[in-house]
Amino acid sequence: MTDIVICEVGPRDGLQNAKHLMPTNAKKEWIRALADAGLKEIEVGSFVPPKLIPAMADTAEIVAYARTIPGIKVIALAPNLKGFQRALEAGAQKVTFPVSASRQHSESNVRMTPDQMVEEVRKCAQHPHAGVEIEGAVSTAFGCTMQGTVPEEDVLRIATKLAEFCDSVALADTVGYANPVQVRRVFAKVKKAIGNKLEGAHFHNTRGLGLANALAAYEEGVRSFDSSLGGLGGCPFAPGASGNVITEDLVFMFEAMGVSTGIDLDKLMTARKIMVQVLPQEQTYGHFALAGVPKGFRAAA
Amino acid sequence: MTDIVICEVGPRDGLQNAKHLMPTNAKKEWIRALADAGLKEIEVGSFVPPKLIPAMADTAEIVAYARTIPGIKVIALAPNLKGFQRALEAGAQKVTFPVSASRQHSESNVRMTPDQMVEEVRKCAQHPHAGVEIEGAVSTAFGCTMQGTVPEEDVLRIATKLAEFCDSVALADTVGYANPVQVRRVFAKVKKAIGNKLEGAHFHNTRGLGLANALAAYEEGVRSFDSSLGGLGGCPFAPGASGNVITEDLVFMFEAMGVSTGIDLDKLMTARKIMVQVLPQEQTYGHFALAGVPKGFRAAA
Repeated sequence: MTDIVICEVGPRDGLQNAKHLMPTNAKKEWIRALADAGLKEIEVGSFVPPKLIPAMADTAEIVAYARTIPGIKVIALAPNLKGFQRALEAGAQKVTFPVSASRQHSESNVRMTPDQMVEEVRKCAQHPHAGVEIEGAVSTAFGCTMQGTVPEEDVLRIATKLAEFCDSVALADTVGYANPVQVRRVFAKVKKAIGNKLEGAHFHNTRGLGLANALAAYEEGVRSFDSSLGGLGGCPFAPGASGNVITEDLVFMFEAMGVSTGIDLDKLMTARKIMVQVLPQEQTYGHFALAGVPKGFRAAA
Repeated sequence: MTDIVICEVGPRDGLQNAKHLMPTNAKKEWIRALADAGLKEIEVGSFVPPKLIPAMADTAEIVAYARTIPGIKVIALAPNLKGFQRALEAGAQKVTFPVSASRQHSESNVRMTPDQMVEEVRKCAQHPHAGVEIEGAVSTAFGCTMQGTVPEEDVLRIATKLAEFCDSVALADTVGYANPVQVRRVFAKVKKAIGNKLEGAHFHNTRGLGLANALAAYEEGVRSFDSSLGGLGGCPFAPGASGNVITEDLVFMFEAMGVSTGIDLDKLMTARKIMVQVLPQEQTYGHFALAGVPKGFRAAA
């Protein structure tokens, strides 16, 4: 057992927002390298219509491949029942459903209000899915590029409803608006309402606060974090700005703090190299990759 | 009164480690723009031998100029009595003396042990300096590229001695080795020993943990932070890696948290533009500069 679980979302959130397509075989090699580095949870793709997001067209094949790698939990995103059915057929072990707490974002994205989207996820939860975990991910939980402020009571209501029928609930700072004080407050509020059903934290580094927010969430009891190798993918709402929290920086921070992740930083750099070689023109990020470990550094036991 | 004080060290720590020289007039324009943005403390230069660090050769002129700008505290670094005397003649209002807690770093850098260097600073403190503040800055307080680990009892001993005769003591993560758990622990230990004499925190962003460490220090009661606009200067010990905590990201984090800095983010971007225009080939950093404020953002009151 490790102290925390880091879920690599690069193959999904990273590639979905990248400018360049990663060939299917390269995805497989990259996912294997991530597993070799010790990642135990990998969000490998998204069951959205291939016409909408061509980068995710091979998700079924990727899920099936990832299932052949021992020791990892294979996660996929689905936006609706059709996507969920495809995820189940492909063999996903956990399916995450994004529900935007921002009414404007939700209506623009899925033509449903947040509460209508919750009912869509409820339908999925009522669909037979023996042994497959369902996560409800409250996106834009800390702010929205369209709506600006997202009322915390909306986040709380959506999270509480999702907790009725999901195995776990995550809070996502989809556009990098969160700050550490807000992170503490919102996680504490939702935790009070749904207890241990609140699991994951998904932060973006758009304004550089990704690690500070992860630290705040950790100190509020969060033990499950999403991140993306090399911060792949950027931010579609802020051209040139960075995207997801950077896996290698996150791992370094926690290991330096004595919080074990089970992830080997050297092997993580190998996985990074594979990704960079396949997508050499894609902007990647990360401080640890440039600086390496401090002299005398010891990872958490 | 603001909740915290941010001291801009770009003109000293940034330029000292930059590859390119900034002309004297450009330094003046930049410092004025920093003051216009609301910076109340600016470390404008270092009284080291000009042959050793040509970028600091004009520090006396810069100090004299900065003293003509109302509302700022003009800070300079001095490594010894000779530098201190030059700082006093030039009109510095606060002089900071670095004392490396790493024996190896200290001996290599100033040919003195840390404790010998403390006595050098004591001599300076005994020199007449009416109205001029003296800060003892414990450098490599969280680790050292030469020595690796720096024992916390060494940091504690140096800080305690410095507190005997300095107006304030700062702890500096000179090479970007610190992590938030260590920051909390070391600041708490030193605070217990010297109380409110412990003031400043100086972090580097070498491994991306700058803001997380600043957050941890803030939560331990620190209210005075060094940072560098655009993270100017990089890290001489890790080529390609970033340097000081980035002023604009630090200001954004605190303002977003509701912690007032007195600094105007728009005007800070103007100061950044001036710096970038003068040193176009110098690597700069910063997430906020790429992403801007979130929609609906309100600075701390």
